Amino acid sequence: MAMASVRIRQAEEGDCGNILKLIRELAEYEKLSDQVKISEEALRADGFGENPFYCCLVAELLPAPGEPQGQGIGSKIIKKVAEVRRGMGPPAWFWKSKHVALERGCSQLRLTVLDWNKGAMDLYKALGARDLTEAEGWHSFRFEEEAMRELAGK
Amino acid sequence: MAMASVRIRQAEEGDCGNILKLIRELAEYEKLSDQVKISEEALRADGFGENPFYCCLVAELLPAPGEPQGQGIGSKIIKKVAEVRRGMGPPAWFWKSKHVALERGCSQLRLTVLDWNKGAMDLYKALGARDLTEAEGWHSFRFEEEAMRELAGK
Repeated sequence: MAMASVRIRQAEEGDCGNILKLIRELAEYEKLSDQVKISEEALRADGFGENPFYCCLVAELLPAPGEPQGQGIGSKIIKKVAEVRRGMGPPAWFWKSKHVALERGCSQLRLTVLDWNKGAMDLYKALGARDLTEAEGWHSFRFEEEAMRELAGK
Repeated sequence: MAMASVRIRQAEEGDCGNILKLIRELAEYEKLSDQVKISEEALRADGFGENPFYCCLVAELLPAPGEPQGQGIGSKIIKKVAEVRRGMGPPAWFWKSKHVALERGCSQLRLTVLDWNKGAMDLYKALGARDLTEAEGWHSFRFEEEAMRELAGK
């Protein structure tokens, strides 16, 4: 079976249009499209300024002939993050200032996932993650824009 | 009824001993004491270096005579975070580099809480937060040290 070759690399500013597209596609799958407020401009500003708020990996595919199949991209990206945390990943310039943070020893990797997204939940479990909501009862809470405005005004 | 006066301020490096004490007391209440791995040294290094990984507010109490009562510290701290996010909070020097991040417009404030910690859940709801685990089915997943080491070694 022909497999596309996958390259995991750090996102560049020029990827923001595609990143937003992926965010929207995920939200559509999650039936949460109305919650996507971010713009390509905000993604650029937040991730590629002097003190970036996020760090992002992307997967590049070199398509190969044959049926499209699962490429294991999810596993490959999670593995890369774990590698970097262990100081065995890409060289310092790859992570820029973030490299220091990760090398200094992040001790956990956290994710959130919808309980009906069985494919994702199964993948994370197979890779060794623990469902903290199920095991310990953790609930995720969110103050949204309007609630924050009301709080601040009180 | 006599109320202590409460002052909310940014944590300083010298607070790390007390912050660790509070982390341990919370973990004990949560019956998760065995999960506390962090040391005072790591708290200092992570929060007060050149690229801090966290920002922390602390509440100072000036004790007043009378029975100790709830001081509304939880609400006051959450309100302060919302204020800062709205650009109505402390001046720039107070937040150092973090100020830029918050002023640029964080659009959400997220928390996690154990489902049996009714006092905390009720407080967050009363302040306007939404329980995303209940409402949408979000589960929190965690890869721990050992799982990350295994992943990275694969």
